[in-house]
Amino acid sequence: MGSTWGNHIKISIFGESHGNGIGVVMDGFPAGHCCDMEFIRSELARRAPGQSSLTTGRREGDQPEILSGMLTDPASGELTTTGAPICIVIRNTDTRSGDYENLRTVPRPSHSDFTGQLRYQGYNDIRGGGHFSGRLTAPMVFAGALCKDYLRKKYEIEIGSHIYQIGEVKDSTFDLTSISDTQLKELQKAAFPVLDPESEGKMKEIVDHARRELDSVGGVIECAATGVAAGIGSPMFSNVESRIASILYGVPAVKGVEFGLGFEMAEKRGSEVNDCYVKNGNNIETRTNYNGGIAGGITTGMPIVVRAAIKPTPSISRGQTTLNLKTGQEELLEIHGRHDPCIAMRAPVVIESAVALAMLDLCLEAWGYAPV
Amino acid sequence: MGSTWGNHIKISIFGESHGNGIGVVMDGFPAGHCCDMEFIRSELARRAPGQSSLTTGRREGDQPEILSGMLTDPASGELTTTGAPICIVIRNTDTRSGDYENLRTVPRPSHSDFTGQLRYQGYNDIRGGGHFSGRLTAPMVFAGALCKDYLRKKYEIEIGSHIYQIGEVKDSTFDLTSISDTQLKELQKAAFPVLDPESEGKMKEIVDHARRELDSVGGVIECAATGVAAGIGSPMFSNVESRIASILYGVPAVKGVEFGLGFEMAEKRGSEVNDCYVKNGNNIETRTNYNGGIAGGITTGMPIVVRAAIKPTPSISRGQTTLNLKTGQEELLEIHGRHDPCIAMRAPVVIESAVALAMLDLCLEAWGYAPV
Amino acid sequence: MGSTWGNHIKISIFGESHGNGIGVVMDGFPAGHCCDMEFIRSELARRAPGQSSLTTGRREGDQPEILSGMLTDPASGELTTTGAPICIVIRNTDTRSGDYENLRTVPRPSHSDFTGQLRYQGYNDIRGGGHFSGRLTAPMVFAGALCKDYLRKKYEIEIGSHIYQIGEVKDSTFDLTSISDTQLKELQKAAFPVLDPESEGKMKEIVDHARRELDSVGGVIECAATGVAAGIGSPMFSNVESRIASILYGVPAVKGVEFGLGFEMAEKRGSEVNDCYVKNGNNIETRTNYNGGIAGGITTGMPIVVRAAIKPTPSISRGQTTLNLKTGQEELLEIHGRHDPCIAMRAPVVIESAVALAMLDLCLEAWGYAPV
Amino acid sequence: MGSTWGNHIKISIFGESHGNGIGVVMDGFPAGHCCDMEFIRSELARRAPGQSSLTTGRREGDQPEILSGMLTDPASGELTTTGAPICIVIRNTDTRSGDYENLRTVPRPSHSDFTGQLRYQGYNDIRGGGHFSGRLTAPMVFAGALCKDYLRKKYEIEIGSHIYQIGEVKDSTFDLTSISDTQLKELQKAAFPVLDPESEGKMKEIVDHARRELDSVGGVIECAATGVAAGIGSPMFSNVESRIASILYGVPAVKGVEFGLGFEMAEKRGSEVNDCYVKNGNNIETRTNYNGGIAGGITTGMPIVVRAAIKPTPSISRGQTTLNLKTGQEELLEIHGRHDPCIAMRAPVVIESAVALAMLDLCLEAWGYAPV
Repeated sequence: MGSTWGNHIKISIFGESHGNGIGVVMDGFPAGHCCDMEFIRSELARRAPGQSSLTTGRREGDQPEILSGMLTDPASGELTTTGAPICIVIRNTDTRSGDYENLRTVPRPSHSDFTGQLRYQGYNDIRGGGHFSGRLTAPMVFAGALCKDYLRKKYEIEIGSHIYQIGEVKDSTFDLTSISDTQLKELQKAAFPVLDPESEGKMKEIVDHARRELDSVGGVIECAATGVAAGIGSPMFSNVESRIASILYGVPAVKGVEFGLGFEMAEKRGSEVNDCYVKNGNNIETRTNYNGGIAGGITTGMPIVVRAAIKPTPSISRGQTTLNLKTGQEELLEIHGRHDPCIAMRAPVVIESAVALAMLDLCLEAWGYAPV
Repeated sequence: MGSTWGNHIKISIFGESHGNGIGVVMDGFPAGHCCDMEFIRSELARRAPGQSSLTTGRREGDQPEILSGMLTDPASGELTTTGAPICIVIRNTDTRSGDYENLRTVPRPSHSDFTGQLRYQGYNDIRGGGHFSGRLTAPMVFAGALCKDYLRKKYEIEIGSHIYQIGEVKDSTFDLTSISDTQLKELQKAAFPVLDPESEGKMKEIVDHARRELDSVGGVIECAATGVAAGIGSPMFSNVESRIASILYGVPAVKGVEFGLGFEMAEKRGSEVNDCYVKNGNNIETRTNYNGGIAGGITTGMPIVVRAAIKPTPSISRGQTTLNLKTGQEELLEIHGRHDPCIAMRAPVVIESAVALAMLDLCLEAWGYAPV
Repeated sequence: MGSTWGNHIKISIFGESHGNGIGVVMDGFPAGHCCDMEFIRSELARRAPGQSSLTTGRREGDQPEILSGMLTDPASGELTTTGAPICIVIRNTDTRSGDYENLRTVPRPSHSDFTGQLRYQGYNDIRGGGHFSGRLTAPMVFAGALCKDYLRKKYEIEIGSHIYQIGEVKDSTFDLTSISDTQLKELQKAAFPVLDPESEGKMKEIVDHARRELDSVGGVIECAATGVAAGIGSPMFSNVESRIASILYGVPAVKGVEFGLGFEMAEKRGSEVNDCYVKNGNNIETRTNYNGGIAGGITTGMPIVVRAAIKPTPSISRGQTTLNLKTGQEELLEIHGRHDPCIAMRAPVVIESAVALAMLDLCLEAWGYAPV
Repeated sequence: MGSTWGNHIKISIFGESHGNGIGVVMDGFPAGHCCDMEFIRSELARRAPGQSSLTTGRREGDQPEILSGMLTDPASGELTTTGAPICIVIRNTDTRSGDYENLRTVPRPSHSDFTGQLRYQGYNDIRGGGHFSGRLTAPMVFAGALCKDYLRKKYEIEIGSHIYQIGEVKDSTFDLTSISDTQLKELQKAAFPVLDPESEGKMKEIVDHARRELDSVGGVIECAATGVAAGIGSPMFSNVESRIASILYGVPAVKGVEFGLGFEMAEKRGSEVNDCYVKNGNNIETRTNYNGGIAGGITTGMPIVVRAAIKPTPSISRGQTTLNLKTGQEELLEIHGRHDPCIAMRAPVVIESAVALAMLDLCLEAWGYAPV
């Protein structure tokens, strides 16, 4: 329903790009988790704008204020979850709403300006996309960072990602069978997370080229989770793929989601892509991992691998025609807000956060909240 | 949760491949719908096995028994929905359970045999995949056919699909802007739904080749919905893509879902794929439809287009190694059940059914159940 | 939503009083539970009509056919849950639909005839109340019996009830602090479950008196659950009272629900009804249990006690005026179907079943499904 | 789930009694509603503490800050909903946390101190009850006031209540058939809402008596909704009673809920309490309304009437024994926080708010969000 997601952990995201602020309520997060606020801030920083000339000129500190659900533990002196709903607010500080005034009349192509007006009978906050803005991914990153920290400490699950594709430049893919938590942690820390060091330069060139031409470009993020126990999830509609996809599609600009080999499966033979079981010490593993760690909707114990396609930023400064809804005439539109030429560059931490939320939801379903 | 899906219409699917039967309860289906049982049966026939030498040898009449939720309307003499939950059962008639006995010990690669045992502590019905079987898509097709019939009569929404890819053979894609309800209806009736007539022969050759080599092959289904009003759906987690993806991933063997250009968006410039608004008579449309009828998570009024990647049937007769869980040794597995060499061939009606369920759920959310 | 309930275990109830049959799908029931079918049948028999001259003359075997979700365990020879959705059907055998023909025109007072027609635009199955019928509690009893059996074996939780009130005759109330599982099991076996043996005769007299006057009478069921661990449930909307009440009000004819002292709390002082903590061996208990085992929405470890008020059967043979919707005139209505003079007499097992479903849902939320 | 409620409108309540603040996110509230902030503030004032010597000495302005979901409409100059999630925060200003320090060791009887610690493994914020505090009803009142305002303007539904009982003093009950919106509006404005003017003095005396004896006393609130169209709701678990009860039990201290005659139904004959249909002009009504406006779980068009039992404030200054969890010894507890001697006095607006949320949820389900 709308901006609420989850069964065992529930997030409810609120706010608008140019309103008072944005934030999230997380209900059901386990009590007693000692929060690594430094990690959370570093995750928010990964998403924050203004990091380089290749991202939007908007600068926001993205400092979360914690309204509820955490207390300083007298024993450790650390902020610790209480089990009650966690609410955080991030104030909007660098807004220039004048940029957006005429969007009701002249809606931007491929954006929510037109559909949002229909949906909300013209009452939607259209400034900067309002509640549809990519800025709403900041509270999702806060929530996801908390989940990642918890998953790591409680279940030894690690979640990381790299930019797999920008324009026509493709990075290497994960080696589906040998992804390690160390590798994922390093990717989390990288300023520009790719597997093949040569990809960075080529990708930045593509983005810079698009930027100079007042245009934008799309990309693909590849995300992995290691350490997930086998046997989690359910057949049919509560399968792991369905749960992850349902939240990934909640990230604005995602237009495709695939697991393991994904669409490449179409051209393969069963004999090529069946993941045979093997023994590795006492563990049962699969020799290959073309299914991305999920069989029959349930985890196999191998790394979970998912890719999300991110469309080019629809807001471009380059002139494009659109319809003036008042005059009924087509007219030229040049968008003068501050926009990323490639959203995919800032997307890795957002995709990881969505996957982390899905994984924690699945883990809480599997193990509950009560001591045994 | 498990085998239950939906908010405004809820389906609960039950049954196992080799048990007494399979079926579905649909809760929330509107009252007063005069059911076109002939259409429903034709849809079930599209999915049913045994149609040609290229599908499984299992033969099932797939005759649904209606247990509840419909009455013969005295006025029209037709079966009419009462508004109460609709339950149908399809009995299993052609089961040969002896085929599956050793799967607990020697799990089939890329199948649910191993993960299902972990999930259900070894108590799952493993015969023919049990509740994980593709056979469970039959009740989904019943439910979907009912929805398609209703969507057509009530909202003039039509849903159809074609086999876009099998192996390396690709059919044409839909012309995203000019899909018509007539075209979709014809595809529903086609024995082998493709857009380019030459695709059929090439695809069948691919499948037959795989079959002769005791192997299987994957594919992609492209599905479209026309007539969907603009302004349906919501931002963030209840967007149209998220709702459709959440049910599509409930179809066994789906490993990828994309909307409009999907993953191809990654290599495009914003200026290439932004869908500009234009006026067509009194309608506002988009000149292109690269976003597949959805912007900001909300329908634009253009055709909705989604593609689903289907992996090759994991059950193949060709020998493959797997692990004997008792001995801890790898051994050769040859699967002697009756399996499709290409599930994708029977998938179109299943994908359409999932999309129809999602569309009706979204429509009921938008318009409710009560007269104005 | 409609006839679906639950988060961690989901039931979806279907069927109509005079249709082909009634039944339930239970999704999420734990795998590996060896079903005590004798117990389940005895529970269904407690609810079944035709037990004495004081219940409806309709006679139904209420034999459940198991369609899915159970297998005979080769080890024990017993029917065992597989973890897949359990579907059962109970066929309707003794229907006389002629009795109900004119109810669309002349709706029975305090029944669903009128409201059901409005809700479903006249398409509802009105025979015997259709989907609104009290007969739909039979599948709820099946589901509840399965839960009771599981709760007993897995968590040592026992659920039982007695008829607390019929007309003006009141039985003793449970001693809130000392309810035992033995006591509850005995109540389950009693043909007429009361605490004070003298209540039975007085209550039967009241019912018989009403029956002879072609009338009906209401009642109250008091239900308890013992063995529930402390610390289960959540504050606010997912508290134990809310969850139990939400399903109890799904039982037709329930018009009131109260916990512990309930409405009597209104006239008490805090000092009278506060439940002080005391130590009993190593256990922490409360000296009194006026809150019925729940404080702050969370279980205290003391017996949970809930009462449900059941209204008099609205269908009475005695003449009453109602409106003829066609003529717009009031007319005399004498209802000639076969109806219980006091539904409360058959309600104990239904109330217990609803409480059992709520308790299992809460337990699965607390402990999950996966081995630790 | 936890502190989240609703299907078509979703509220997520957060905060603790002595933390930074409390608030609510409302997702799904219709766009374009011009908010009567004066009404909302007056509703918050009805609940706010510090109104008289008979309520807690804690003084809070309860000024809501609107973080999202509303914009000043340029046309009207009024705050108007945008359709995006509405988030408001009420800061805590008058907290004295020192009062609560020892509650972890010496839990207050009948409060959440003990159960909350078990549920959250001792990490819960125990100051002032933390997230369990009655103070969390303030954001519920904000949300409810918004719903009441909308229901009034859109559907002509009015919701009001009176204090029906305090201690042994009972006010008159609503005349179930003739409740008017005017009457309900007047009750909303009354400083002490009762039907019989003589009740006020008697009730206040009871409360003052309890207060002087350092004790507390319980009560009952009777709430009604007029103008609700017939035909809303569903059979079984989504019936109107179930939906209203599920949120009412989310109000701390509620221990009983009943509709229409409620528990009094138990002692009645069907012939006494069946609500016969009659024609009133063109309307179909019932002559009596013992079922409180609901038959078969669906609205009849008559006023909806529900009563909620409120237990005595568990926090009393009067000495009571409880257990010291560290020493294992019983000891005398005198609670020195600032507490109402009778929560019921401030409960009417809270109960109305819960009912308003339930009614809007039901209306949105019935009529959806989209223009026809």
